[in-house]
Amino acid sequence: MSLVLPTYDDVVHASATLNGVAHRTPVMTSRTADRLTGARMFFKCENLQRMGAFKFRGGYNAIANLTPEQKRAGVLTYSSGNHAQAIALSGKLLNVATIIIMPEDAPAAKKAATEEYGATVVTYDRYTQSRDEIAAEMQKQTGMVLIPPYDHLHVIAGQGTAAKELIEDVGELDYLLVCLGGGGLLAGSALSARALSPSCKVYGVEPEAGNDGQQSFRKGEVVTIAPPRSIADGALTPYLGQLTFGVIKRDVTDILTVTDPQLISALKFFAERMKIVVEPTGCLGAAAAFSGALSLPKDSRVGVILSGGNVDLKDYAGFLTQV
Amino acid sequence: MSLVLPTYDDVVHASATLNGVAHRTPVMTSRTADRLTGARMFFKCENLQRMGAFKFRGGYNAIANLTPEQKRAGVLTYSSGNHAQAIALSGKLLNVATIIIMPEDAPAAKKAATEEYGATVVTYDRYTQSRDEIAAEMQKQTGMVLIPPYDHLHVIAGQGTAAKELIEDVGELDYLLVCLGGGGLLAGSALSARALSPSCKVYGVEPEAGNDGQQSFRKGEVVTIAPPRSIADGALTPYLGQLTFGVIKRDVTDILTVTDPQLISALKFFAERMKIVVEPTGCLGAAAAFSGALSLPKDSRVGVILSGGNVDLKDYAGFLTQV
Repeated sequence: MSLVLPTYDDVVHASATLNGVAHRTPVMTSRTADRLTGARMFFKCENLQRMGAFKFRGGYNAIANLTPEQKRAGVLTYSSGNHAQAIALSGKLLNVATIIIMPEDAPAAKKAATEEYGATVVTYDRYTQSRDEIAAEMQKQTGMVLIPPYDHLHVIAGQGTAAKELIEDVGELDYLLVCLGGGGLLAGSALSARALSPSCKVYGVEPEAGNDGQQSFRKGEVVTIAPPRSIADGALTPYLGQLTFGVIKRDVTDILTVTDPQLISALKFFAERMKIVVEPTGCLGAAAAFSGALSLPKDSRVGVILSGGNVDLKDYAGFLTQV
Repeated sequence: MSLVLPTYDDVVHASATLNGVAHRTPVMTSRTADRLTGARMFFKCENLQRMGAFKFRGGYNAIANLTPEQKRAGVLTYSSGNHAQAIALSGKLLNVATIIIMPEDAPAAKKAATEEYGATVVTYDRYTQSRDEIAAEMQKQTGMVLIPPYDHLHVIAGQGTAAKELIEDVGELDYLLVCLGGGGLLAGSALSARALSPSCKVYGVEPEAGNDGQQSFRKGEVVTIAPPRSIADGALTPYLGQLTFGVIKRDVTDILTVTDPQLISALKFFAERMKIVVEPTGCLGAAAAFSGALSLPKDSRVGVILSGGNVDLKDYAGFLTQV
């Protein structure tokens, strides 16, 4: 079976679809961040995206590209959180019914927000049940269309629009740091970077406890790991997708990892110095820069995608008070 | 003695002085905030201003307007926090030495940031000592120029530039909600609103426990109260200034109050839904809208100045976890 990988043209098409629907989120800079890293940092604030994360881009783009018949059948998905809200909100905006299969330990705020958008939520145990099997079974029963959280051409293309906007807004970059879960954002970002800033090095950053992406990248094939535990709840995927890995192994420079304490340190920096709420997963790219996991040449131009800001306030308060 | 009140021309002059030095901060909107209030809300994000608060505008403008001789003598001020950082940073940028007299119970983050900018910090007990007397004594000893936190023409003019930008960016407003401590921001905002959006109603909002502004406004003269206790640590001033009150009594519609629980509710809203860190004082205007302290006609256009984002992370975490 030959795989049709998404291209930058798909990202451009997604951009047109999202125009006037998704926010063109701001790019923030910080003298303190520049001083800490020695580089010039550009933070693309997808925490300020609709529903609080970049996932809206891919979810909306995927549903918008369904046929009228598929839209009538409705959409089904599984997600640890932000993709769920993305599909729920996009379904509402496009008048398409949605069912979300969600781990029972997903943040309460994400479950509640998903239901608020009018989706039906079904829960499962992330440590004993396979979401793919549940999804396949439900798809069979309901006839709904499955839009997976990352391994989907229109999802990847939609996610790529964030990096496209970033580079359009600030100019070419030397480095682009992107958080890595299933690889939708990283693959899409790599497509945009390759097209708009060809010499830019693109790095995926994942939690050390869940380094399936790094293992896969270095082995040259998708490696599956046990469900990892990290505060980066949006990056707990045990394996990359076939499409996302296809783009990542071709277009990405390397995959880095950071620890939970490094994530917390970045999260506190964003609250204290930049006055923005970034969820732990959204701190992955910045943590690689702040911690020195990636050493950045002086004054190099570094883009970082802050993927989202959806975090239970109680959990967030706990992170802020960790030393 | 006749008082020379600042005018909108002074605000325009301050704008030119601050151009390229202060950030032109973004105006954020939120569908959820609009749904909650029934109005169209425009949040001017001075929490994203340099050093984290609008106070930079007034501090910088005041120092920039000193004579060369005054600049050589250096600047002295008293402040519960943000004005201190504003003077410290502005002094550094303009190469002017600064001494800051600060209450010993001011947030540790504010003290540290002030010293980081190179200012000398002197502390006093807010409940037993008079900062004015200490300042006068030190001024006599050192020959430095005193720039008070709000009752100063160039300070008020500088603070007015935030509302000027807001109205320039989003158009005329029906309401403008401004937090009120000593009245620098409120007076400056009222000057801009009167000039740029003449029919706009301008409200000052202060903590219920420290309603000296409301009392003064209704009595028609400056009323002094005992040092109030509220989480709005930037609005604990026991009296308005002569200049600020002169503008406020002429140009402001009314003064409202909100409670600490209402401030916390707004603070949590900003973190959870808008993904921004706003300090308690910065929540005063929004709390008046969210709590219904001011009832807003449907679809009315409401500007709110989020004055700052400087809050100890430990305190902030505590606010986020209060029910």
